[in-house]
Amino acid sequence: MTELYAVRMDVALPPDMDPAARDDLLAREKAYSQQWQRSGHWPHIWRCVGQYANLSVFAVDSNEQLHQILWGLPLFPHMSITVTPLAAHPSDIAQDPAHKSTAQTPAQDDAAQ
Amino acid sequence: MTELYAVRMDVALPPDMDPAARDDLLAREKAYSQQWQRSGHWPHIWRCVGQYANLSVFAVDSNEQLHQILWGLPLFPHMSITVTPLAAHPSDIAQDPAHKSTAQTPAQDDAAQ
Amino acid sequence: MTELYAVRMDVALPPDMDPAARDDLLAREKAYSQQWQRSGHWPHIWRCVGQYANLSVFAVDSNEQLHQILWGLPLFPHMSITVTPLAAHPSDIAQDPAHKSTAQTPAQDDAAQ
Amino acid sequence: MTELYAVRMDVALPPDMDPAARDDLLAREKAYSQQWQRSGHWPHIWRCVGQYANLSVFAVDSNEQLHQILWGLPLFPHMSITVTPLAAHPSDIAQDPAHKSTAQTPAQDDAAQ
Amino acid sequence: MTELYAVRMDVALPPDMDPAARDDLLAREKAYSQQWQRSGHWPHIWRCVGQYANLSVFAVDSNEQLHQILWGLPLFPHMSITVTPLAAHPSDIAQDPAHKSTAQTPAQDDAAQ
Amino acid sequence: MTELYAVRMDVALPPDMDPAARDDLLAREKAYSQQWQRSGHWPHIWRCVGQYANLSVFAVDSNEQLHQILWGLPLFPHMSITVTPLAAHPSDIAQDPAHKSTAQTPAQDDAAQ
Amino acid sequence: MTELYAVRMDVALPPDMDPAARDDLLAREKAYSQQWQRSGHWPHIWRCVGQYANLSVFAVDSNEQLHQILWGLPLFPHMSITVTPLAAHPSDIAQDPAHKSTAQTPAQDDAAQ
Amino acid sequence: MTELYAVRMDVALPPDMDPAARDDLLAREKAYSQQWQRSGHWPHIWRCVGQYANLSVFAVDSNEQLHQILWGLPLFPHMSITVTPLAAHPSDIAQDPAHKSTAQTPAQDDAAQ
Amino acid sequence: MTELYAVRMDVALPPDMDPAARDDLLAREKAYSQQWQRSGHWPHIWRCVGQYANLSVFAVDSNEQLHQILWGLPLFPHMSITVTPLAAHPSDIAQDPAHKSTAQTPAQDDAAQ
Amino acid sequence: MTELYAVRMDVALPPDMDPAARDDLLAREKAYSQQWQRSGHWPHIWRCVGQYANLSVFAVDSNEQLHQILWGLPLFPHMSITVTPLAAHPSDIAQDPAHKSTAQTPAQDDAAQ
Repeated sequence: MTELYAVRMDVALPPDMDPAARDDLLAREKAYSQQWQRSGHWPHIWRCVGQYANLSVFAVDSNEQLHQILWGLPLFPHMSITVTPLAAHPSDIAQDPAHKSTAQTPAQDDAAQ
Repeated sequence: MTELYAVRMDVALPPDMDPAARDDLLAREKAYSQQWQRSGHWPHIWRCVGQYANLSVFAVDSNEQLHQILWGLPLFPHMSITVTPLAAHPSDIAQDPAHKSTAQTPAQDDAAQ
Repeated sequence: MTELYAVRMDVALPPDMDPAARDDLLAREKAYSQQWQRSGHWPHIWRCVGQYANLSVFAVDSNEQLHQILWGLPLFPHMSITVTPLAAHPSDIAQDPAHKSTAQTPAQDDAAQ
Repeated sequence: MTELYAVRMDVALPPDMDPAARDDLLAREKAYSQQWQRSGHWPHIWRCVGQYANLSVFAVDSNEQLHQILWGLPLFPHMSITVTPLAAHPSDIAQDPAHKSTAQTPAQDDAAQ
Repeated sequence: MTELYAVRMDVALPPDMDPAARDDLLAREKAYSQQWQRSGHWPHIWRCVGQYANLSVFAVDSNEQLHQILWGLPLFPHMSITVTPLAAHPSDIAQDPAHKSTAQTPAQDDAAQ
Repeated sequence: MTELYAVRMDVALPPDMDPAARDDLLAREKAYSQQWQRSGHWPHIWRCVGQYANLSVFAVDSNEQLHQILWGLPLFPHMSITVTPLAAHPSDIAQDPAHKSTAQTPAQDDAAQ
Repeated sequence: MTELYAVRMDVALPPDMDPAARDDLLAREKAYSQQWQRSGHWPHIWRCVGQYANLSVFAVDSNEQLHQILWGLPLFPHMSITVTPLAAHPSDIAQDPAHKSTAQTPAQDDAAQ
Repeated sequence: MTELYAVRMDVALPPDMDPAARDDLLAREKAYSQQWQRSGHWPHIWRCVGQYANLSVFAVDSNEQLHQILWGLPLFPHMSITVTPLAAHPSDIAQDPAHKSTAQTPAQDDAAQ
Repeated sequence: MTELYAVRMDVALPPDMDPAARDDLLAREKAYSQQWQRSGHWPHIWRCVGQYANLSVFAVDSNEQLHQILWGLPLFPHMSITVTPLAAHPSDIAQDPAHKSTAQTPAQDDAAQ
Repeated sequence: MTELYAVRMDVALPPDMDPAARDDLLAREKAYSQQWQRSGHWPHIWRCVGQYANLSVFAVDSNEQLHQILWGLPLFPHMSITVTPLAAHPSDIAQDPAHKSTAQTPAQDDAAQ
């Protein structure tokens, strides 16, 4: 079974970090992240605007697997992480395939108030 | 141009609300949400486990359109909402199509530590 | 696979609630909780001292199942709930059966400092 | 008499700690923790997913003993700790042995809403 | 064994409470508190200046007893309570009787800086 | 006139402090604290369980004297301090000497609910 | 001896309060406040801009007197109050009368940076 | 026109600061503060008891002038500052000179409740 | 002299407010706001996306005038307001008119990193 | 389309930063800020009084552009940044040009209460 989690990661690197060490660390972080993205277990990663932070969604087998992935992040010692377990939402049209056939734009009037 | 935003909505309905009024309100909320989901502007909605809350992603034309959609929610007067503007993440493989061709599962060993 | 979660539930009932309605609500809550405890999915429930609150541990199949159990609590509309996903701890002796054979009391001296 | 407490420990090690000193510290922490686990005074320890943190339950003789155990943790100077005293919960089936004989799975329908 | 706890209780009564019901509630609270004070289990109660709140110290047999006392407070449904378990402090002169024989006033100079 | 205050002191020493300097600092802190305890101005000091912190009660002549005592603490530069002024509580039996003559244990039944 | 305290009071009246009851309450509050101002025990009261709140300074004989004044405020049940005990500041020129004789305006240049 | 502001300054000096540099810094801070006090623009400065902090009132020509004074504080890089703009309070007897002529002590009875 | 302030207003109307009373209240709020906007004292008002809130800038003669404007808002009893006094920023090109003559778009490259 | 955002930036430079490096950093920050101000994308920047902080408004093409501008700030590694997306406010007279022709000062009486 696949479990979904929203994960926010805030990064705080020491301002005086050695530039070469920093470049190496960030290169390893990127490679590690992309490896897991390609596996399908890290389907979404977005930058939070104006922050050294990302909001990600993970699709994993278990709490255990999620912890192993996060613990293995090269930036883990420099991160503050929050984890929100997710479940299907009863209003999600993906839960009700019939809805998918008639995509249309809601009248803007409906939303204006 | 399409802008992305993460939106968390926490709902607090009065415990003594009239059941019929409540059912009607929730039915209108669901219809409204699904209308915008079908339009493509509300691509993700997840339930936060154990909470009367959802985490959603919106893909809209502007700040203005996002506000109109949220303001129009039938549950808006009962919600506490936080909005996080999103941008592309430099490590996102969707930003680098070459990465997509060789999907593979990272060795679990790499993450275990 | 069984997933573990720590869940804290804080209850806030309206002080002027009708006593009979309150008694009925609490009786249904107790029955519901005990039904899930007997199933093995709710292995721990403790009272937080001086609080109308409990700390519980759930052992469930998925995020989804945990959400359904919590959402179904008769007291859910009156609760504030926090969920912490758990994983095995690398120092847990339950992860290393060899440790179990030589139970002993650590010398109190070791801890005194 | 045995008293129960929930204890959350968040660890923050300096990112630039000497690797050998760090390894030694963590080895001593693990040995110390397992010694107390084997004694029966530290019956539960779980990893909080995505955090350098654990949630533990202690079963000790007194506030004093709990403090001595925690104060003696090799990682104590690097930890932020919160302590929640626990008591028996009136809905706990362990308080009512008659409940234990008829374990069964609640119908999933009961929880779905 | 006697365990010590610091307990802060903040009271929030509805401003429109019936005055007679309020007087009755406060009279029962006072009687209940004084009964436990006389028993020796509630050795200190102080008013926090400018607050409808008190800071108390309890000396009880167990977490369980403390919870029963607090849960039984007539004002419990209107209170927000925090509990801090206490232990002996290594600098407390009560832990080292020899110190008690030479009471004296420290020179004010020592403290001025 | 004697004024009472509850004071909580949380200590945060640098983890890499020189051990000898640390030992000296702690010895001076202990001596300073005990000097004021013997004077009668620092009647209570308790360890907060699991914390490098204490909860104390001071009985001093004035705000000014309390500040001078706290400011003079050798650990002051490493402490975070909160001060709560206290007054007599109207339910305190020490305010009503007649209550003192008939100490008794409240029936446990009264508190159980 | 006179003790000084800074006190902030935030007022939250029910929006649907009866206008006559409200007018009466506010008139009593004003009279009560001015009575204590004239006595010299409430030397400063300022409105916090944009808030239904005031910042005040009290000069009283004791913690006890301050509590009695605040507890007696007609608006007390509708207020959230914070109390900060004050002492003389070592840089206060009022502590060093010699400074008072040569009032002058600091050159603006000194402060501009 | 003169504008009033309440300003709280919390100081956090590095514990390992060079003593001579620290003494020099504090001497410059004191001289700077007293210069502005003598000018009449800094009419009140109080020590917050038990804190390395002060609560001050400034009487300045403009937001701009207040910022220049605070920015110029030698301790500014080590301070956390909060600014609360103040206005006249409608209950302030200084706004209603007639009240000043009949100073009297309110009966303590009025405040006791 | 004109003083600038950033003001954030969060509105919380009772969900069960009478619709006609609500419409009247909002019409009066709008008229009042626009009157002050036309006067030049309320130069900016923006909606915070997804919130029943605005961020505004006021340009007024004094703290006193700002308070009178905010206190007079028909929605004041339903608002939570925060006020931030503003001053000129030393990097503002409006402080250095010479900068205005050569408007140009910074190369996007400069910002990309 | 132009999107508006309120951005608050709080700066925390290490107190022991090399003065020349600091001067260089601040000069680059100022030049970078003014370049974007001249482009029209950073229309407002104000100093928050008493803070090493600014409140700014950005007018940009997209979330992406805003992130690139902020990420490129020379002070970015030393800043804590919050971003609030803005939309037009329905009471803004700029949304209703007819209002602009009759600017007038509201009677002060209207606001006094």
